[in-house]
Amino acid sequence: MEQFSSKLLEDAIQSFQGLPGVGRKTATRMVLHLLKLDRNQVEQFAQSLHKLRQEIQYCNKCHNLSDEQVCSICTDTRRDGSVICVVEDVRDVMAIENTQQYKGVYHVLGGKISPMDGVGPSDLFIDTLSDKVNSGNVKEVILALSTTMEGETTSFYLYKKIQNPVVKITTIARGISFGDELEYADEVTLGRSILQRTPYENSLVK
Amino acid sequence: MEQFSSKLLEDAIQSFQGLPGVGRKTATRMVLHLLKLDRNQVEQFAQSLHKLRQEIQYCNKCHNLSDEQVCSICTDTRRDGSVICVVEDVRDVMAIENTQQYKGVYHVLGGKISPMDGVGPSDLFIDTLSDKVNSGNVKEVILALSTTMEGETTSFYLYKKIQNPVVKITTIARGISFGDELEYADEVTLGRSILQRTPYENSLVK
Repeated sequence: MEQFSSKLLEDAIQSFQGLPGVGRKTATRMVLHLLKLDRNQVEQFAQSLHKLRQEIQYCNKCHNLSDEQVCSICTDTRRDGSVICVVEDVRDVMAIENTQQYKGVYHVLGGKISPMDGVGPSDLFIDTLSDKVNSGNVKEVILALSTTMEGETTSFYLYKKIQNPVVKITTIARGISFGDELEYADEVTLGRSILQRTPYENSLVK
Repeated sequence: MEQFSSKLLEDAIQSFQGLPGVGRKTATRMVLHLLKLDRNQVEQFAQSLHKLRQEIQYCNKCHNLSDEQVCSICTDTRRDGSVICVVEDVRDVMAIENTQQYKGVYHVLGGKISPMDGVGPSDLFIDTLSDKVNSGNVKEVILALSTTMEGETTSFYLYKKIQNPVVKITTIARGISFGDELEYADEVTLGRSILQRTPYENSLVK
């Protein structure tokens, strides 16, 4: 393995090498890039990592990553707190926020039920979801989990668990993606999209 | 553009996004990976960046990156200080060190002459190389620059500049790479490799 004459360089490269998808060559390229930057910029980089790990926390209400005890989505009074979108992790919150189509709040489970990986219901934030549902302030729970085996299992588990006569449980629409050609769609998706067809007027973007 | 609800997260992602070959998605993946690590590990990461930029310096003698005023290669008494290998940058030192075939010292130019990028001879460490060559302690200078237009120009410039009756100027061998098929080699390389053929015994690894 290539070794640098400089221990400082070596340490920095080792740090980057631990990141997903970064091998030794890429790590070296990144570190040499940093050396060309201004001292302040690198100092900011180091500071951002330091602060990230020291100060970030999980929102007390929805378990989203947050700078405060309660995240900026939960505290936003313009959002509808009676609609809860249940997602697996923080990235899903980002993805949905990015669509700018959702004005409710979230509940981050922290994963999905996956016996293969040793993740059971007790490893996820399911109790806090139940509590919210039973608090009487919730009208709808949207299950927005992956359409994988584990995602479907988790959805079904939640559906059984959080039954409440006054709370509607919905799931995000599944079907053919925009831009997809029918002939290349898998049978399950295509089959479901026919069964769960919607009035044409509804498909028009308002 | 996707925006996180957390400023801390956003700052960290922005830091990574500046690195070569890292877009927003990759930066996000890296930061979320860091959040899963132990606090100490992330602290070490931040520290390695901080120390790298604050403490690293360029070797007074060869301009290689170094932890001390003179790098560990220049101070290594087992190496032959009378043979100097001239390279473009730090990565080339690494690459040559990695072969474990070279026991001399280095001289890092800091780039190559490239009028297109506004880099002239005065932007490179050429004077310090001249001084070394004329010090009387040097027997051989090996030019190990790229075989690009700029590299060849720089080699030729150096060759003219550092002429000294007692110093041999050599260049690393160019030819067909190991594992290459002749039919796919470019004509220039193949042509040269025929003109500069070497005795078969020399090609046997000793």
